[in-house]
Amino acid sequence: MREAYHLELGKLADQLAGMCAMVAEAMESATRALLDTDLAVAEQVISGDEKIDDARSSCEEHAYALLALQAPVATDLRTVLAAIHAAESLERMGDLALHVAKAARRRHPAPVLPEPVHGYFAEMGRIAVDLARKAETVIRTQDVAAARALEDADDEMDDLHRHLFSVIMDKEWPHGVASAVDVTLLGRFYERYADHAVSVAKRVVFVVTGRMPGSGDEDL
Amino acid sequence: MREAYHLELGKLADQLAGMCAMVAEAMESATRALLDTDLAVAEQVISGDEKIDDARSSCEEHAYALLALQAPVATDLRTVLAAIHAAESLERMGDLALHVAKAARRRHPAPVLPEPVHGYFAEMGRIAVDLARKAETVIRTQDVAAARALEDADDEMDDLHRHLFSVIMDKEWPHGVASAVDVTLLGRFYERYADHAVSVAKRVVFVVTGRMPGSGDEDL
Repeated sequence: MREAYHLELGKLADQLAGMCAMVAEAMESATRALLDTDLAVAEQVISGDEKIDDARSSCEEHAYALLALQAPVATDLRTVLAAIHAAESLERMGDLALHVAKAARRRHPAPVLPEPVHGYFAEMGRIAVDLARKAETVIRTQDVAAARALEDADDEMDDLHRHLFSVIMDKEWPHGVASAVDVTLLGRFYERYADHAVSVAKRVVFVVTGRMPGSGDEDL
Repeated sequence: MREAYHLELGKLADQLAGMCAMVAEAMESATRALLDTDLAVAEQVISGDEKIDDARSSCEEHAYALLALQAPVATDLRTVLAAIHAAESLERMGDLALHVAKAARRRHPAPVLPEPVHGYFAEMGRIAVDLARKAETVIRTQDVAAARALEDADDEMDDLHRHLFSVIMDKEWPHGVASAVDVTLLGRFYERYADHAVSVAKRVVFVVTGRMPGSGDEDL
């Protein structure tokens, strides 16, 4: 029974790791759609979001079944609950990639991003995808040190996000208000995506160590 | 045992309803701070956020204890899990009120909002607070019809949010880019707050009816 239980827990972790891979891919494509003004790629991300939502439902159902059938306690209980939270964060990451793709589609064939902020988004996209992939590794390996490394990457994201703001807020911003609004929201989508990736990793740390790492994953 | 269990569930619902009242008050004050450029009120909201975070932890611990000690199944299990999700949404609503208060503080003594959008935020604030209070009633009464009414109020919020965007995006917007960026983010905070309130109500509907109302609580 215990062994069967741990087998099921392992399957649940696999599902979550799979979700990480899905949202990493979604954000990678969404960023490409944004930077290359590629409508076909944007459409792919938009139509692919349903799969991420389904994966979340399926994780959640699996977790519920584990709770109902096995009534775990202590660490086992917390593991299942952490999985439910992680699935929620991952679905949200998918939604944020979807928002990026929708922004690319909304302005097509015009580019959403003025040239001077391209580099910021290329870099924020890279970090976002990297964070999701790192979260995948953390789930697969339960490596606490790797989980902590996510926070450094998230700090990089926050720095970029702050710099991006100073660029938009500069009195000399020559690209108009509409474009500033687009860039503001897009910046926030990347930043929130990163926060959620960190929160997924923190849940894993919690499961492994029994202690939740310090909060502060959310700021603006 | 069953009776004791339902007593505990009732207490958990009370805690959640209490959280609704807290986040309603936080958003009410944050909106006042924003509209009246009132630094003291902004500081109150900012220092009060910790209490909301604590309330969430305490809901979550209570829910965990129920799961571990009583190993509920079927509807009882789903009720506890819905409570865990609701507590997470409510904490997030508190964070969003906090963001509004921080924006008011950041620009103080200058007002964050240019005069022409005041009316939008007064109205979005009113709807946001109303949604949180309605969610409180839904939790206390488990009234499915009342839960559905939240979606209408959320539609109003979405309409206002869209109008607000058209005001900012107008070529004639005379208040500069920095102010457009502030208004964009603030608008999003209110809109997300409303989404979370609806999601809390939907969880209650799910607990009562066993079916999750249609998704689509999240858009941009």
